[in-house]
Amino acid sequence: MAVGDFNGNYEKVKEFIDEAERYSVDLICFPELTLTGYPPEDLLLRRDFIDDNLAVLNEVVAFTRGRNIVVAIGYVDVGDGLYNALAVIYDGEIKGVYHKVSLPNYGVFDEKRYFSQGKRLNIFAIRGTKVGFSICEDIWDPYGPVPRQVLAGVDLLVNVSASPYHISKIRLREEMLRVRARDFRVPVVYVNLIGGQDELVFDGSSVVFDPKGRTVARAKSFEEALLVVDVEPNIIYKGSSQIGAAKGKVQEVSIEGLSIGEKPPITPVICEPLPFLEEVYQALLLGTKDYVRKNGFNKVVIGLSGGIDSSLVATIAADALGPEKVVGVFMPSRYTSEESSQAVKQLAGNLGIELYIIPIEPVFKSYLELLGVYLSKASSGVAEENLQARIRGNILMALSNSFGWLVLTTGNKSELACGYATLYGDMAGGFAVIKDLPKTLVYELARWRNKKAGRDLIPQIVLTRPPSAELRPGQKDTDDLPPYEVLDPIMELYVEEGLSIEEIVKEGFDKGYVENVVQRLKNSEYKRRQAPPGIKVTPRAFGKDWRMPITNRWRPFVTKM
Amino acid sequence: MAVGDFNGNYEKVKEFIDEAERYSVDLICFPELTLTGYPPEDLLLRRDFIDDNLAVLNEVVAFTRGRNIVVAIGYVDVGDGLYNALAVIYDGEIKGVYHKVSLPNYGVFDEKRYFSQGKRLNIFAIRGTKVGFSICEDIWDPYGPVPRQVLAGVDLLVNVSASPYHISKIRLREEMLRVRARDFRVPVVYVNLIGGQDELVFDGSSVVFDPKGRTVARAKSFEEALLVVDVEPNIIYKGSSQIGAAKGKVQEVSIEGLSIGEKPPITPVICEPLPFLEEVYQALLLGTKDYVRKNGFNKVVIGLSGGIDSSLVATIAADALGPEKVVGVFMPSRYTSEESSQAVKQLAGNLGIELYIIPIEPVFKSYLELLGVYLSKASSGVAEENLQARIRGNILMALSNSFGWLVLTTGNKSELACGYATLYGDMAGGFAVIKDLPKTLVYELARWRNKKAGRDLIPQIVLTRPPSAELRPGQKDTDDLPPYEVLDPIMELYVEEGLSIEEIVKEGFDKGYVENVVQRLKNSEYKRRQAPPGIKVTPRAFGKDWRMPITNRWRPFVTKM
Repeated sequence: MAVGDFNGNYEKVKEFIDEAERYSVDLICFPELTLTGYPPEDLLLRRDFIDDNLAVLNEVVAFTRGRNIVVAIGYVDVGDGLYNALAVIYDGEIKGVYHKVSLPNYGVFDEKRYFSQGKRLNIFAIRGTKVGFSICEDIWDPYGPVPRQVLAGVDLLVNVSASPYHISKIRLREEMLRVRARDFRVPVVYVNLIGGQDELVFDGSSVVFDPKGRTVARAKSFEEALLVVDVEPNIIYKGSSQIGAAKGKVQEVSIEGLSIGEKPPITPVICEPLPFLEEVYQALLLGTKDYVRKNGFNKVVIGLSGGIDSSLVATIAADALGPEKVVGVFMPSRYTSEESSQAVKQLAGNLGIELYIIPIEPVFKSYLELLGVYLSKASSGVAEENLQARIRGNILMALSNSFGWLVLTTGNKSELACGYATLYGDMAGGFAVIKDLPKTLVYELARWRNKKAGRDLIPQIVLTRPPSAELRPGQKDTDDLPPYEVLDPIMELYVEEGLSIEEIVKEGFDKGYVENVVQRLKNSEYKRRQAPPGIKVTPRAFGKDWRMPITNRWRPFVTKM
Repeated sequence: MAVGDFNGNYEKVKEFIDEAERYSVDLICFPELTLTGYPPEDLLLRRDFIDDNLAVLNEVVAFTRGRNIVVAIGYVDVGDGLYNALAVIYDGEIKGVYHKVSLPNYGVFDEKRYFSQGKRLNIFAIRGTKVGFSICEDIWDPYGPVPRQVLAGVDLLVNVSASPYHISKIRLREEMLRVRARDFRVPVVYVNLIGGQDELVFDGSSVVFDPKGRTVARAKSFEEALLVVDVEPNIIYKGSSQIGAAKGKVQEVSIEGLSIGEKPPITPVICEPLPFLEEVYQALLLGTKDYVRKNGFNKVVIGLSGGIDSSLVATIAADALGPEKVVGVFMPSRYTSEESSQAVKQLAGNLGIELYIIPIEPVFKSYLELLGVYLSKASSGVAEENLQARIRGNILMALSNSFGWLVLTTGNKSELACGYATLYGDMAGGFAVIKDLPKTLVYELARWRNKKAGRDLIPQIVLTRPPSAELRPGQKDTDDLPPYEVLDPIMELYVEEGLSIEEIVKEGFDKGYVENVVQRLKNSEYKRRQAPPGIKVTPRAFGKDWRMPITNRWRPFVTKM
């Protein structure tokens, strides 16, 4: 599914319905907002967009005519406002509509910007089996509609989601769902969106639990598929339907007429959860692949420096797109070491990607000649360092403009947090693959990928030598930044956990380091604002879940009392 | 006031209280979220930030001890959530707190991301005069708390706001407030924030209406000041306090002990509303001045091309900051006309700003030599055009890096809508002054400014010759874009009004033009995502009120039925 791709999404929906029918499936469930894609953001404010979404829904309804299958599909409903909705369709007719009740408006989510809160609590009796449908946040929210659906008496809970990936999310989600199944003693069917959409990756990881919280089926994460499962609405406890119904809010929708027919035997798929690093890597692959594919690019181009970041990005790109779609560009300067040159050539050879070598010296020289008289003698250092990065950015963009290639940037989260990157230089490009990876995780992933390859796909020297931008003689990252093993946990505590400087120091970190990181973080907001989007991997990325003012005069307030 | 500037905001609050006391003022009202500044965005998610805000509030409370004045001041309150709150303080004590009820979560606003909805409806009886306080959106919302406050019986409505400027907003706001005063037959006191904060400009325009909707006082827009006014709570109608009180929601807070004393006679200030173009220009001045000042820049640098956009930006900068703080840089290429050269020199002379002339030819040549073999013969045109723009961007950034100057970009809204700008080229910089001005308004403002100066501050030729980027021989904007008189209204109808292509065509626009603009708009989302912030002037700017996916496969859906 892709945002706005009404034609493509419709075709896919038809294919899946056809496939499900071959398994004699009674009920097929598609993810949250399947027809529009998720999140459609401000496209939702356009009437013509909403109308198109309703037109596609009509087509889907017509497509079900004469078929022996119930279809539950996410779309945008229109009433006295917009609703994040699920239509339950059978035999050419919408039998009922569910409206999402709990609208997330935190983190990357803006649902209260667009949607009205659902007020109905309808239960769908599909050939007698009472199904409580809910949408994403609805089942996370302990005060949401699900406990009330259970009290009204359901045999089965179905949650359709567009739940974006971050580290530990899949585990948190499964734990929550397992507890819901046990709490309410009903099977829980969880259907999640798959695919990359700008900075978000939806991991899928659809899963089914029985009333004891045992895994009945689990789809492969990061891969679109039809998960077919026989759910036994094994009712060991039934809530009193009077409690909910008494409030006059629960409406029961009956869907009859499904013929039972012959069902082929189903062997449920139960994929194992992925190990940690593989899971992160898969998220990066899917995010990259989908950004490239959905935006219609044929090739990507990456500036290779011989450092760990660009080496990992090139490896991810080659894995995601195939090496024939990746062009590496090595742009040495007077400060580039022989080691870097060797590393780049080796890497390109290992990955089997095309490599251009374009030394920037002549252009750098011409800039220095031109600007020499203008730049301040005292402080030309940073200007000259940034110039080199910007020449490289210009070269990559020129190739992009000439051939229509997408430039992948190579900066990591630690750099971006500290503003240790050049705006319009190494930050120039369309998509920032590892933007949300702390530097220490960059190393871990690179090592893991080598191990998986059974050889040094990324050359050993890249992994072992100290990181350097090579923009002045003998430069090292640690000249300006704390060591990454210190920087990364400080960043995590400040950005993700929201701890204060004092609290982080109390956790055992050096005060000077903590203040350095926080100061750098605050001073580089303007850079992050102009950074390209990249894949969210941590619980809080520098994207839609980081909305900081640039103009920010916050210094700790000192009371004079 | 500035976001996060607890120390500075506190000092200012004290000064205003002192000044108000000299006028024997009974009640001084500060704007919404005075202590934190508005909008604090995700700083609100930090506990240490909230704590600092409470610490400052305590200082303000202590400061009022022994003084004969009631202080109403905006801050963030903490309860079972965060509240956008107003503390009413007298003699070293918080007498009561009001929590904002109607939380805007549309346009540029994200208040439901941070705040819980207020539940209390307290009325403050200040020496017997019953005051209904509300915060910004509360008084816009016809279903908000204000009608209920009136039913509970108030003698006076006070609304404290942080209401950002856009064209026609001041008029709309005054109309609404005037109607509230008449509807409820009570005086309405409206106190609005002043100042620029990233892309927003708060225009102030504080105003007081009597119960007949007549203007009693009006402060100057775009200027911080204490507006002193004698409000006659001339009660010609009183609601029944039973209706509201019966619901158990209205709490009356009594503030006694104010001594009446001698009041000096007050002549109310009633400033005239500004004429349209002057109003827009003032907004741009304040937005520019405050971004520069609050971010600690000493000078700005602007690339001057001899075109209308950079000429207007330089004029605004010189007016906002003084010519001694503005550096113009003219960077001619092989395609730059003699006319442009003349125009730039004349403009710099007229404005009295410093001018650097740095021809880009040597660097451009060195790039062409370096990249010649790599660029596609067929499509090197765009690459070469963009290279010129990027060399200029690099030069400005080198000056910025070397001297700490802020680069002001010069692109307008029509260009940005159509992607008719070079990422990392003319889009490179920290603040985009006229980012939200349609090109036709750029011309209007330039003419207005010349008229006001009584001479051609911006040279005549700049206003009369056809716009051109001068990146290839004989280039004109109209080679690629519809004429701006057509483009601008199409853009307005699509972006601000949300009309569909068909609807715009029905308004009398050429279908080819409309499709061209809409296609360009969609294809350039990735550029806008990386654009610097700039001043919001129209009802919908390409900023926080434009949250569009980059990955967007929306094409009109064609039903096959």
